[in-house]
Amino acid sequence: MTTNHTPMWKDLGLDIEAHDALLSVLGQAYGDIYLAQENRPEGMGYFDFVMSEVHGQRIQELVDAQAAGRKVIGCYCVFVPEEISLAAEAIQVGLCSGADFAMDEVEKYLPRNTCALIKSSLGFKLAKVCPYLECSDMVVGENTCDGKKKAYETLGTMADNLYVMDLPQVKSGEGRALLKAEFLRYKEAVEALTGNTIDAAALKKGIAIVNNKRKAMARLAALRHNPVLPISGLDALIANQVFFYDNPVRFTDAVNALCDELETRIAEKTSVIADGTPRILVSGCPMAVPNWKLPAVIEASGAVIVAEESCVGERGCRNLTDDSADDMDGLMDALVDRYLAIDCAIFTPNTERAGHIKELAEKSKADGVIQYTLNFCQPYAMEAIPLEKELEETGLPTLRIETDYSQEDMGQLKTRVEAFVELLK
Amino acid sequence: MTTNHTPMWKDLGLDIEAHDALLSVLGQAYGDIYLAQENRPEGMGYFDFVMSEVHGQRIQELVDAQAAGRKVIGCYCVFVPEEISLAAEAIQVGLCSGADFAMDEVEKYLPRNTCALIKSSLGFKLAKVCPYLECSDMVVGENTCDGKKKAYETLGTMADNLYVMDLPQVKSGEGRALLKAEFLRYKEAVEALTGNTIDAAALKKGIAIVNNKRKAMARLAALRHNPVLPISGLDALIANQVFFYDNPVRFTDAVNALCDELETRIAEKTSVIADGTPRILVSGCPMAVPNWKLPAVIEASGAVIVAEESCVGERGCRNLTDDSADDMDGLMDALVDRYLAIDCAIFTPNTERAGHIKELAEKSKADGVIQYTLNFCQPYAMEAIPLEKELEETGLPTLRIETDYSQEDMGQLKTRVEAFVELLK
Repeated sequence: MTTNHTPMWKDLGLDIEAHDALLSVLGQAYGDIYLAQENRPEGMGYFDFVMSEVHGQRIQELVDAQAAGRKVIGCYCVFVPEEISLAAEAIQVGLCSGADFAMDEVEKYLPRNTCALIKSSLGFKLAKVCPYLECSDMVVGENTCDGKKKAYETLGTMADNLYVMDLPQVKSGEGRALLKAEFLRYKEAVEALTGNTIDAAALKKGIAIVNNKRKAMARLAALRHNPVLPISGLDALIANQVFFYDNPVRFTDAVNALCDELETRIAEKTSVIADGTPRILVSGCPMAVPNWKLPAVIEASGAVIVAEESCVGERGCRNLTDDSADDMDGLMDALVDRYLAIDCAIFTPNTERAGHIKELAEKSKADGVIQYTLNFCQPYAMEAIPLEKELEETGLPTLRIETDYSQEDMGQLKTRVEAFVELLK
Repeated sequence: MTTNHTPMWKDLGLDIEAHDALLSVLGQAYGDIYLAQENRPEGMGYFDFVMSEVHGQRIQELVDAQAAGRKVIGCYCVFVPEEISLAAEAIQVGLCSGADFAMDEVEKYLPRNTCALIKSSLGFKLAKVCPYLECSDMVVGENTCDGKKKAYETLGTMADNLYVMDLPQVKSGEGRALLKAEFLRYKEAVEALTGNTIDAAALKKGIAIVNNKRKAMARLAALRHNPVLPISGLDALIANQVFFYDNPVRFTDAVNALCDELETRIAEKTSVIADGTPRILVSGCPMAVPNWKLPAVIEASGAVIVAEESCVGERGCRNLTDDSADDMDGLMDALVDRYLAIDCAIFTPNTERAGHIKELAEKSKADGVIQYTLNFCQPYAMEAIPLEKELEETGLPTLRIETDYSQEDMGQLKTRVEAFVELLK
C-alpha cells in the first residue's frame, strides 16, 4: 500500500497490532499463492491491486462516502439483496471471513464444533481486525443455517447495529411470502438507515447495476468452459471474492476488460494449462478471502479449477433479476423470485442443486468434482453424501473434502487431492 | 414379555435377530438402571410393565387398531400436534431413538458429525429394529434443526410414507402464519390418511385428551418440587418418555394414580433421597428411550434430578391448549399459539428459555443445572454458552455436558458429574 492507512484504521477502532499481523499473513499468502503463478492475464493486475488495498483504499472510499452522507451495509450472505441497498444509495460489502483469528477468544462464545466461517466472523469482530465490519452502519445477518442463526444472537450482544433477516427453509407459498415480507422489511430498514425513499426507478437502477455485475461474472465463467483455458481457477476465485467488496460498477468494468483479454487469449490459444490437465469443478461451501487453501492445493497438484458451484461462484451469481416491471411490487416480486432460485443447502428439498452441478460439470468439461465442506457445516455435509452417489452414477468421479482454515491437515489434504488428480489423468 | 411377539415383528418386516439384540440390551439396561433403584413408588409398576412391553403389547395394540381401521402416525418431534391426529381417530407415537444401532451403515448416509439422535433414527430404519416406525401408516418429519431437516431427505428415499412439516425459525407474524398453514396442511393430510373429517367437536376432544395428559405431567413435575422428594429423576424420566408411546388416556390415568401415591408419600415424608442430596435440573436436548446415560450417572453420583427442561420433559409438556373456541379456526389458532410458545433452540431469538430455566430451577429448588447437549447439536450447543453465563450470574452453578449414546466417555462423564455434585454439597 502506498498510503499510510493507520490513522483511518485507528479511527475505525481496529486493533492495529493484530490487524498488521493479519495483513502481513494475507500479503504473504497472496504473494505465495497468486503472484507466484505464471502466465497470468494482464487484467488480473486490477484484482491484485484491489487485494493489496482491500483494507486500505477501498475502506478509504467507504469512509469518504460516509462523510458525504452515504451508508455502508455489511452482510454475510448472498441472500441480502444488494439491489435494494444500492437503490437507497447505500454501499453493500461482504463480511464473510476466511481466516482463523482470536480462536481462543471465539471459543468462549461459540462451541468448538462450529464451522470455520462462523468462528472467523466472530473472531474478526472480537479481535477488531475487520475494517468492513467496523465501518458498517448496519450489519445484516440472516437465518440460513443453524450455526449462523444462533451465532448472530451472540454477535448481537457485541454489535448494536445488527439487523437479522429471516429466511424460509422451504420454497413453498408461505416460504415465498416470508421472503417477500423480509425483503420489504429490509427495504424499510434501508430507507430508515439512509433517509432515502426507494421508488421503482431507483430499484430498477439498483437491479441494473447488480445484473450487470452478475452478467460479467457469467461471461467470465463461460470463458472458463473453453478447452483453451485462459485463466486459472485461483485467479477466477479472486474475481469471485472481490465481487463482494468492490465498487460494483468499477468491478463490472474490470471483469469485462479481463474477459476481453481472455477472449483474445482463447483466439490465440494461450492456455494457462498444458493439454490433458485434469479439470476440476469445486462444489459446496463458500470461500471467503483469504481462504484459498483447497484451490491452492488443487492447482499445485497438477489440476485446474474450471468452475465453482458455491456462493462465492456460480450459486451466488447465477440468475439475473427480471427488471421488466415498472412498479415497486412487480420489481420486489422479481427480486424475490431471483433470490428464491438460489439452490442453497439450507432449503429442503434442494433437488435442483444436483442438476446444476451436473450441467455445470458438462459445460465446463470437468473431469471430476471436489465437494468442499467446512467441518461442522451440516447442510453441505448432509447434501454431499447423496450428491456423491448421484454424480458418480453419471460417471463423474468425486472427492469429498471436509476441512477448516487451519494448516494442520495440509499433509493429508495434499495426499488426497493428488491421488484424486492422478485418478483423473 | 409373556406373549411371543415374534410373528408380529416378522409381519412388520423387522430384522428379528437384530431386534432381539436391541431388546436384550434394553432389558438389561432397564434392569440395571431402573429396577435396581430402591424405595420406588408402587405406581412405577405400570411404567415398568409398559417398558417391558414397549415393542410387544403396545405394538400389538397398534396393529389391532389398524386392523380395525385406525391409522398410526409416527413422529420425531413435539411440534407434531397430537390433538389433530387424535381428532381424526389416528394414533400418534414417538419415533425418536435413543440408542446407537447400525452406525457403520448410518455413516454411509449421514456425516459422522451428526447428532446421535438423528443417527439413531436412521439406524433404527436401516436395521429394521423399530416396530413403531415399521407399523406407522405415516411418518412425520419436521424442519427443526439443519441436521433433522436434511436427514429427512435421506429418510425419504427409504420410507415412502414420510410427510415433512415445515416450521418457522422466528416467532414473527409470518412465522405464525407459516405454522398455521402447516397445521392446516397437516390436518388435511391426516384427514386424507384416515378418511375422517375433523370438525370442531372432534378437535376439541383431541385437545382435551392431550391437555389432560399434559396436566398430569405438570402435576408430576410439581410434586418433584417438594423438599420431600417422592420419586427419582430416573423414574420421572420414564414417565416423560412413555408419554410419547402409550395410549394417552390410559397413560394419563397411570400418571395421576402415580401422583396420588406421591402425594401420600410427601404427606408421610417418604423421600427417595437423604437430606442434603444435591438437586439437579437437567436442561437441553431430549432423551429418547433408552437414552438414560446421563441421568443414570447423575443419580449414581449422589445427586437427584428434580426437573427436565427438555422436549422429553417440561418443554414438551408446558402450556395447555385453550379449548374455549367453538369453531375450527379458533381452535386451530389456539393450537398454533400453544405450539409456537415452545422455547426450542431452533427459534431465534429464544430468550424466553433462560427465564423458563431460572423459574424451573427456583420452583424445583435445584442446587445446580446440568446442560445436556448431544454432540453436534448446534442449536442447543450454541445456546448453552450464553445460558451458562446467565445462570451463573444468578448464582446457579452449571455444568455443560456434551456427549452421545456411546459408552466411550463414561469415565470422563462420571468424573465430571461427580466433581460437580461434590461442589453442590
